[in-house]
Amino acid sequence: MTTESPTDEWLAFPKTDRSRIRREPHLGSYLHSDVYSVVDASPLCHVGYVIDGQPFVTPTMHWRKGNRLYWHGSIGSRFLRQVDGARVCITCSLVDGYVLARSALNHAVNYRSAMMFGVAHVVEGLEETERALRDFMDGLFPERWDSLRPVQEKELKATSVLWMEIEEATVKSRSGDPSDADEAHVPVWAGVIPMETVLAGSRTAPEVPESIGLPGPLAGLIASGRLR
Amino acid sequence: MTTESPTDEWLAFPKTDRSRIRREPHLGSYLHSDVYSVVDASPLCHVGYVIDGQPFVTPTMHWRKGNRLYWHGSIGSRFLRQVDGARVCITCSLVDGYVLARSALNHAVNYRSAMMFGVAHVVEGLEETERALRDFMDGLFPERWDSLRPVQEKELKATSVLWMEIEEATVKSRSGDPSDADEAHVPVWAGVIPMETVLAGSRTAPEVPESIGLPGPLAGLIASGRLR
Repeated sequence: MTTESPTDEWLAFPKTDRSRIRREPHLGSYLHSDVYSVVDASPLCHVGYVIDGQPFVTPTMHWRKGNRLYWHGSIGSRFLRQVDGARVCITCSLVDGYVLARSALNHAVNYRSAMMFGVAHVVEGLEETERALRDFMDGLFPERWDSLRPVQEKELKATSVLWMEIEEATVKSRSGDPSDADEAHVPVWAGVIPMETVLAGSRTAPEVPESIGLPGPLAGLIASGRLR
Repeated sequence: MTTESPTDEWLAFPKTDRSRIRREPHLGSYLHSDVYSVVDASPLCHVGYVIDGQPFVTPTMHWRKGNRLYWHGSIGSRFLRQVDGARVCITCSLVDGYVLARSALNHAVNYRSAMMFGVAHVVEGLEETERALRDFMDGLFPERWDSLRPVQEKELKATSVLWMEIEEATVKSRSGDPSDADEAHVPVWAGVIPMETVLAGSRTAPEVPESIGLPGPLAGLIASGRLR
């Protein structure tokens, strides 16, 4: 019996007919770490699902715990009433800039995008639902949960948390300059116009007493340059 | 025969079983102008489609001409080989900030999102394809097309442009402060952390001659605060 050491192979999602990258595979990755890094940097995801053959794409916030992706919504929504046990595709995308080249079809976008496949499940039980929501809050706004008015049972009953195990996933990304430096004789400007998304300060609600300032962890998040 | 003057009623997409907003309908709109304004402000969209019952969600750039939405891709992609004539759902989403309330489930996101339904078609013919790509470029980067190296036939043959008539569409959005001012007695900070996406200057590709500066329309776009 031999013991193999883990390799990247062990930490990658499988290439299947569904997830295999057809177009520009050199821009792609199946590594867990690459997928998670896009997921964790994205403020929202787009959940794709099918009802009676019709595709729907719903934006929502998400959070991740290990290889599970979580999201939530009202129990009244179209999506949540029909999606338990359904196949979903969840995509997180970040745009990093426009890439302007010397010819129209060499123009591009710098971006990072993760496409993930799995089966949606509803978190069962009020306690488990509350624990999942706490994970969500703790990930976004550390130390905040315990400072809030406690969650009420009727609020939990009106909320569904969904999760899926990430079965297959791919990341595609592009960065850097235009790819047609060999056409530099064309007398036109070429380069990158970076696009940046930032948390831009804070705006205290008018009814908050003056004695209550912005908590340190929130100030830290805003100063960090991260979005979450 | 009477002539009725147009009203908002005439300029709204129909409410159908597919598009009717179930959750928080007061946050929603079916007006053409509201849908178009989110579409035109979004740097990218997410296209949802179904292959053998499996949903896929692909991010891509889009452009709009009247009530038609356009997007493009390589003829080699999974999507484009199968999507002609297929039902798609295209969603554009912009996040404007985190909304922090006094209780966990009153936390929210300020956002704008348009969900649109239609049938995908491929633009037929090289001339028509080139014209559509020119519309795309003209919308993003005015005056740029004529300064570029002309598009080659082989490039056009490797590119597909898709379009759909927007048959049904809804916009949902939220803005402003947390909704639980009545719980201001809870001693915790509440307010909004705005999220902003901006074009952050320009980075000239290293091989561009020093004599070629950033064109005026690009400088104008960057200075405008718009993303496109």
